[in-house]
Amino acid sequence: MLQDVLNFAGIAVFACSGALVGVRKDFDLWGILSMGAATGVGGGIVRDLLLGITPPTSVQHWPNLTIAIIAGLLTFFFHPAFKRLYPAVLFLDAIGMGVFAVSGALLALDHASSAIAAVLIGITTAVGGGVIRDVLAGEVPLLLRPSDLYAVPAMCGALAVVIVDGVGWPDWTGLVVGGVFATGLRLASLQWNWKLPTAPQRALGRR
Amino acid sequence: MLQDVLNFAGIAVFACSGALVGVRKDFDLWGILSMGAATGVGGGIVRDLLLGITPPTSVQHWPNLTIAIIAGLLTFFFHPAFKRLYPAVLFLDAIGMGVFAVSGALLALDHASSAIAAVLIGITTAVGGGVIRDVLAGEVPLLLRPSDLYAVPAMCGALAVVIVDGVGWPDWTGLVVGGVFATGLRLASLQWNWKLPTAPQRALGRR
Amino acid sequence: MLQDVLNFAGIAVFACSGALVGVRKDFDLWGILSMGAATGVGGGIVRDLLLGITPPTSVQHWPNLTIAIIAGLLTFFFHPAFKRLYPAVLFLDAIGMGVFAVSGALLALDHASSAIAAVLIGITTAVGGGVIRDVLAGEVPLLLRPSDLYAVPAMCGALAVVIVDGVGWPDWTGLVVGGVFATGLRLASLQWNWKLPTAPQRALGRR
Repeated sequence: MLQDVLNFAGIAVFACSGALVGVRKDFDLWGILSMGAATGVGGGIVRDLLLGITPPTSVQHWPNLTIAIIAGLLTFFFHPAFKRLYPAVLFLDAIGMGVFAVSGALLALDHASSAIAAVLIGITTAVGGGVIRDVLAGEVPLLLRPSDLYAVPAMCGALAVVIVDGVGWPDWTGLVVGGVFATGLRLASLQWNWKLPTAPQRALGRR
Repeated sequence: MLQDVLNFAGIAVFACSGALVGVRKDFDLWGILSMGAATGVGGGIVRDLLLGITPPTSVQHWPNLTIAIIAGLLTFFFHPAFKRLYPAVLFLDAIGMGVFAVSGALLALDHASSAIAAVLIGITTAVGGGVIRDVLAGEVPLLLRPSDLYAVPAMCGALAVVIVDGVGWPDWTGLVVGGVFATGLRLASLQWNWKLPTAPQRALGRR
Repeated sequence: MLQDVLNFAGIAVFACSGALVGVRKDFDLWGILSMGAATGVGGGIVRDLLLGITPPTSVQHWPNLTIAIIAGLLTFFFHPAFKRLYPAVLFLDAIGMGVFAVSGALLALDHASSAIAAVLIGITTAVGGGVIRDVLAGEVPLLLRPSDLYAVPAMCGALAVVIVDGVGWPDWTGLVVGGVFATGLRLASLQWNWKLPTAPQRALGRR
């Protein structure tokens, strides 16, 4: 139940971020709602294709898409308000990322995935929507550019689920530990501005 | 039989539109034929992946791809003629869009899709090729930018198929009603320049 | 065994090419390793999705991804050295392309693909990673732009596998003949600067 609420919150926040890019790019109503839907449920659709779940859950059942479209509509009409809400959006996005990473990893384990596949699919679920959003907007994915940590917390959260599953503890332990850890690491990275390095300008071992 | 002819016409017109983008971007023969093939059969391939039909029909059987490649070759050699034919191309494209939307929706229903999945997959079949074309060309998909209606007619056509199926009428009724409606709505949108709104510049409820 | 070695060599070289684009675009460590992984195993993942193999082999089993990540890490630290190694990289890339084209085609035949599907899937396996790399980098795929032959040798190699299979000769004959032919044709194209034509500026049959 709480998991459903968090899942819907994640979809809504992701959909807002997609719809906002559509507003910024002067897309029309269809374009803005499409960006919202693709960003909100895109990661889950890629997850399902990798697991052989067809049609993907977000295509087959109405709640996920409905949430994404409502979030897109709200963004369409009230987008200037979202700038003032930016800190709240970042906070909810961190929760959504954590929820998607752990739920994606657990679903993968339930579908005969190996440990590495579960981690990869957890990451994909968390970051897939954002990558689709940026590719559709004609931009280099934010995920690849130097920025605050995003995929690394998702990876840690998914990894926690896999480890807890391997140890044999109940599923909800992994969901809680992994989700809280992923979200916390993301928020800490935002707070203290943690970044990964870019490539050294000159090769190591030479001068 | 008529459905096959319309399907091939749709693939050919979509392939021409992809190949023309390739010509405009100075791609070589391979690039132009690839753009034609990806645009002509790309929507159907995405549809099949969403439905779990592997290998996708357009990959497994030769006619669709052959049509797309012939259309691409004709575009390669005779592309200046296509500018004079532009109104005819727009007309055929509207028919192709309608055919793809209704046939995609019907195929989805035949593969245990829900009503919402059938509508989404019908839209995807109709617009997928064009989105792939634009992403490969490094452009923001035309579908998202403010323009004449395109995806909305596809959605209406797919919806008609789902409603007719739900009512229990025979399949061909839905194909005809949905296809004619989608194509007609598209042509009307071109004729009278119907557009969807972009986002309001300032939030509603504020001043 | 030799096939495994060549497969790993292909993944490593493809991963380097993706990671180098990431270095050039100033991505951070995560972005560079992601580009390497997507380029190294992306073609194989698309191949598996087209064949209904879920989760895809490179997601489910660790060796392919591990090779790609090691190659990405080496590129991260030692990328200036790669410029001096450019001829060797081109040579290994030609081998990787040949291996991916023939192994993809053979895997497709083993999964009930038609002849045309096997050729298409062989090409996809060989060129898919590079297309994903360029789309993620926000560039028009190199594959589509006028350049030395790349996809055509892959097509010839995959075709050789299909023909040898149709004739009834043992699989390894097709792998060897197709792989050597594809790699040789690619190297010859580089050596003598073979290119495909772009579209004629004025339509044929007019003046």
